[in-house]
Amino acid sequence: MMSILNSINSPQDLKALDLSTIDSLAEEIRELLINSVSQCGGHLAANLGVVELTLALHYVFDSPADKIIWDVGHQSYVHKILTGRREQMGTLRQYGGLSGFPKVEESAHDTFNTGHSSTSISAALGLAMARDLQREDHSVIAVIGDGALTGGMAFEALNHAGNEDRDLIVILNDNEMSISQNVGALSAYLNRLRTDPSYSRTKEDIETVLRRIPGIGANIARVAGRFKDLVKYLMVPGAFFEELGFTYIGPVNGHNWEELITVLKNARRMKGPVLIHTITEKGRGYEPARRDPGLFHGVGPFDVETGIPVKKPIRSYTEVFGDFMVEIGETHPNLVAISAAMTLGTGLAGFAQRYPQRFFDVGICEQHAVTLAAGLARGGLRPVVAIYSTFLQRAYDQIIQDVALQNLPVIFAIDRAGLVGEDGPTHHGVFDLAYLRSIPNMTVMAPADENELVQMFSTALTLSEPVAIRYPRGVGLGVSVDAPGQPFPVGRGTLLQHGQDLAVIGIGRGTTIGRELVELLAQHGITASLADARFVKPLDKQLISDLACTHKYLVTIEDNVLSGGFGSAVLETLQEERLQVDLLRIGIPDEFVEHGKVDILFEYLDMNPEAIMDSIINRWPELVQPQGWELLKLGKG
Amino acid sequence: MMSILNSINSPQDLKALDLSTIDSLAEEIRELLINSVSQCGGHLAANLGVVELTLALHYVFDSPADKIIWDVGHQSYVHKILTGRREQMGTLRQYGGLSGFPKVEESAHDTFNTGHSSTSISAALGLAMARDLQREDHSVIAVIGDGALTGGMAFEALNHAGNEDRDLIVILNDNEMSISQNVGALSAYLNRLRTDPSYSRTKEDIETVLRRIPGIGANIARVAGRFKDLVKYLMVPGAFFEELGFTYIGPVNGHNWEELITVLKNARRMKGPVLIHTITEKGRGYEPARRDPGLFHGVGPFDVETGIPVKKPIRSYTEVFGDFMVEIGETHPNLVAISAAMTLGTGLAGFAQRYPQRFFDVGICEQHAVTLAAGLARGGLRPVVAIYSTFLQRAYDQIIQDVALQNLPVIFAIDRAGLVGEDGPTHHGVFDLAYLRSIPNMTVMAPADENELVQMFSTALTLSEPVAIRYPRGVGLGVSVDAPGQPFPVGRGTLLQHGQDLAVIGIGRGTTIGRELVELLAQHGITASLADARFVKPLDKQLISDLACTHKYLVTIEDNVLSGGFGSAVLETLQEERLQVDLLRIGIPDEFVEHGKVDILFEYLDMNPEAIMDSIINRWPELVQPQGWELLKLGKG
Repeated sequence: MMSILNSINSPQDLKALDLSTIDSLAEEIRELLINSVSQCGGHLAANLGVVELTLALHYVFDSPADKIIWDVGHQSYVHKILTGRREQMGTLRQYGGLSGFPKVEESAHDTFNTGHSSTSISAALGLAMARDLQREDHSVIAVIGDGALTGGMAFEALNHAGNEDRDLIVILNDNEMSISQNVGALSAYLNRLRTDPSYSRTKEDIETVLRRIPGIGANIARVAGRFKDLVKYLMVPGAFFEELGFTYIGPVNGHNWEELITVLKNARRMKGPVLIHTITEKGRGYEPARRDPGLFHGVGPFDVETGIPVKKPIRSYTEVFGDFMVEIGETHPNLVAISAAMTLGTGLAGFAQRYPQRFFDVGICEQHAVTLAAGLARGGLRPVVAIYSTFLQRAYDQIIQDVALQNLPVIFAIDRAGLVGEDGPTHHGVFDLAYLRSIPNMTVMAPADENELVQMFSTALTLSEPVAIRYPRGVGLGVSVDAPGQPFPVGRGTLLQHGQDLAVIGIGRGTTIGRELVELLAQHGITASLADARFVKPLDKQLISDLACTHKYLVTIEDNVLSGGFGSAVLETLQEERLQVDLLRIGIPDEFVEHGKVDILFEYLDMNPEAIMDSIINRWPELVQPQGWELLKLGKG
Repeated sequence: MMSILNSINSPQDLKALDLSTIDSLAEEIRELLINSVSQCGGHLAANLGVVELTLALHYVFDSPADKIIWDVGHQSYVHKILTGRREQMGTLRQYGGLSGFPKVEESAHDTFNTGHSSTSISAALGLAMARDLQREDHSVIAVIGDGALTGGMAFEALNHAGNEDRDLIVILNDNEMSISQNVGALSAYLNRLRTDPSYSRTKEDIETVLRRIPGIGANIARVAGRFKDLVKYLMVPGAFFEELGFTYIGPVNGHNWEELITVLKNARRMKGPVLIHTITEKGRGYEPARRDPGLFHGVGPFDVETGIPVKKPIRSYTEVFGDFMVEIGETHPNLVAISAAMTLGTGLAGFAQRYPQRFFDVGICEQHAVTLAAGLARGGLRPVVAIYSTFLQRAYDQIIQDVALQNLPVIFAIDRAGLVGEDGPTHHGVFDLAYLRSIPNMTVMAPADENELVQMFSTALTLSEPVAIRYPRGVGLGVSVDAPGQPFPVGRGTLLQHGQDLAVIGIGRGTTIGRELVELLAQHGITASLADARFVKPLDKQLISDLACTHKYLVTIEDNVLSGGFGSAVLETLQEERLQVDLLRIGIPDEFVEHGKVDILFEYLDMNPEAIMDSIINRWPELVQPQGWELLKLGKG
């Protein structure tokens, strides 16, 4: 029964609403959120937490004239519902459907695309500056979580914004956790602001108390004059933000829309940068999500009644990595693990529980995570840094400068590499092979199955230099996993199958695709060799030379951008070795790939076995014998 | 007369010294600094500022058992002088000589290699954690400037360290400027700490004052109990750092070694993270550097008497870019420029002066700089972000996510690309062509001379998508520069010379090398075509096809890593177009390149014309006609 929500097709409709119905509207929105996400998967807890905040924002401000930027953006579903996309919520995160993040291309109400953390204040400041230079008049609002606030660039932006005389509103959406339990001193500080009444008093309250102190009361003005800056601390909670030049308002109950509306109306009129500290509860209104917001941060489809996600029968790469870490931690007392606010997502929860002294969650701080690892390695430990491929981009410079240049034995566990599916272009991890292999001293591997994953980490532990292992999101192939400790020869791939007509060289998920491709080719009378490269760097030059000398045609397959990726590395080797062989490179083309199920995306990119076979036959029609053609037609007909 | 300094061959010698001679020692050190840098070039002002601090550090702590990490590291000369490298100071920054930055390979006293800003606290925390886990016992000290403190990852590390119970000392070397005048709210805050007596009083002072307030004095303990956290603000200057969990000590006069020694001794005994705020003066003791520390941040050789650097007769790429910006700013009211603490270094001082409303120095905050630019572009402006190639690595993720993914028209002016010379491996900008060309929507150019630089920026202004232009450090070729506004056809290179035997395709400085190479080849009877690719992306496929079809051999030359670089892009094109031609790629091999003059480095890398000719003849001996061989022998003999 969406009786009120059905009438909201734009923020204008919201403004016309009888305020007494807002509670019911909030309830309807939560119902829609739960239903949509239980079907499509997505970020539930964060959105349940910002229902009232989003309602108040759109009630007070005039989007799209006023600009609202959602940091990270996974909490923008309510915003989407209120800005004309209610009926598309059933297509959320599906190919061709609504994105799970703000998207300029989707709506005029989406001002700035987000996906990675801590960018909103920078973008909002840019919009505010552009507004002022062009003498426009509108509000700019950044909504940022307490977790995202720990990201360094948020601080860079606060520091800059605090010094610029721009009207800018930053809403700190403080839900006492980001994805994992929040960490760091700032978090402790926010906690004090939330809980200590001497922090949370308003200016008036504090003055009242001060007046009661004998001898101060009457002279408060004089004292204030004398200790101007000191008394500022007395008067003002949120001194941290005040020191950075912001006017601090808060804390405000983020589920009390009346209070929110009042505060936002005030903030709209204020000059200079303002920070509104709202307290919200992740998962509010849905008990399973409220109880375990970490689990419901980003979920796949789940059962609404119980909140139980559909369990996959096969272990994911993440789980295999996590189990490996727990097991190997026993025999490697120097092994330490670092997560950047993704303890659960990277599979390190078990390690963290078993070896709490050797596990460090640094918050959404990939840069710090990598240089911290470099320091730990310099100090004699063996750090494993587990960060998703797309987020590791944040630490590109630190990988070069602090790890590779010093040749320190840091192991990078790069989860969610390649296409990740429903999270879309901000989250696909398709650049890592390209950007990692151009860094000297790096060893780069990608497993073709979960057994290779374990043995690649075993291999990494035998090396005394930086190692990166990248693996995809989701379940493995279900192969049996040998005990750790059977390292691969470094820089050697493996020939899986021998054929005559061409050779396929896969890396990571590319090998899996290659396996199906070779089978499909065989059905059409084309026999192909199949190799699993295992290493992108150092590349197995011998294997490539052998294949190039014994085959007329080579095909490389990778789940990475083609520009500078694995196939390019093979080309470079062929060029260096002066091997003349015709090569077809299969991989992600030079475009950002949309969201949707991974299978659909591979199909769209012509990276499924059928499409690759077509590309092969298109490039080398001579491969198809008359008999083969017939089979091909039959197969396709 | 280095009578005292000559006896200091290790920190142990310093400890044995009669303290009354320290002032003379400091003077001798300054003299050595000025002499060394006036000959070798380098970072003078910063080192003159930390003479007493470094002396005090090595007097109090026991390096290398205690670990000192120098943030950025350009202020480590005094440390080098005191740790057994005094006599090598004449080789500073020369090929094979002392590095201008801390270098583990150079001395046991160098704990962690630095070069890029804001990494020291992360590394120090890692060392402190490793120490604790291994039950070792030593001090860890990070020395970080107030400029570097604005870098986001320094905040990430402060936030984490403040929450970890590790003994760790952070020395904030506050010289009221980093490289350019410091910016941001934090800087304003530090300034208040420095100048406002109510901030800078010690705890005791404040209590004394408090006791004088009628009614408070006697009851101070009771009041303190009641307003525990509020009074903390009253008692403690540096509340910003205290809120982050650090014990704040300061401000301390960084040129008073007695005070420094006392404070450091105290800090050494303290538990948990401590921040010591020292005030130093850049350029102290050398009037020209004190007067203009920006100029003397990093200098080439100069005259000691006058402080005047040797002036180059030809404009640098930096100057040509700066002049272009001033000129074009006139006709492009929407043009804005962003610098990350490098206003002078990037050539933007003129633009900043002429268009102060349209110039933003954001501090050492490359991440924020790029996303701010994205926000400005989204708001309708035309941002030019000027960042050195090596530092732009910090914003790799923001380039992908905030600029390229949203296809925003941000122009990247990437100075110091390729080998930079004396600053060495932390500063060479040799990865950019590889990491930029794999990003969708990016246009990537590199000028072969200063006229191309201007017309490439003119070209960028005609495009409505992200554009990167990378150019080398130092002077141009001295060619005449046309007026701006003559854009190049996008994705088209240019054929400079036509030959028979092979074709050379250069990009950027590679074209300059190519020019000399072609001349040299001609002297040996080999005629070569020469093309200037201009665009790395989109690559001129037509030009490459034409050259591949009309020449048996191709040579690419780039001032960038070979793995995934320009030559790889050419290989990819040849592969896509199925062009079989033998290609030789010249560029930076898969290693970190040391410091030294650029010419020497090119020679070491076999990238000078002579070495490239050798490589060509080695690969294709058939190119050399009998007559050619004779000429070659004569030429070399």
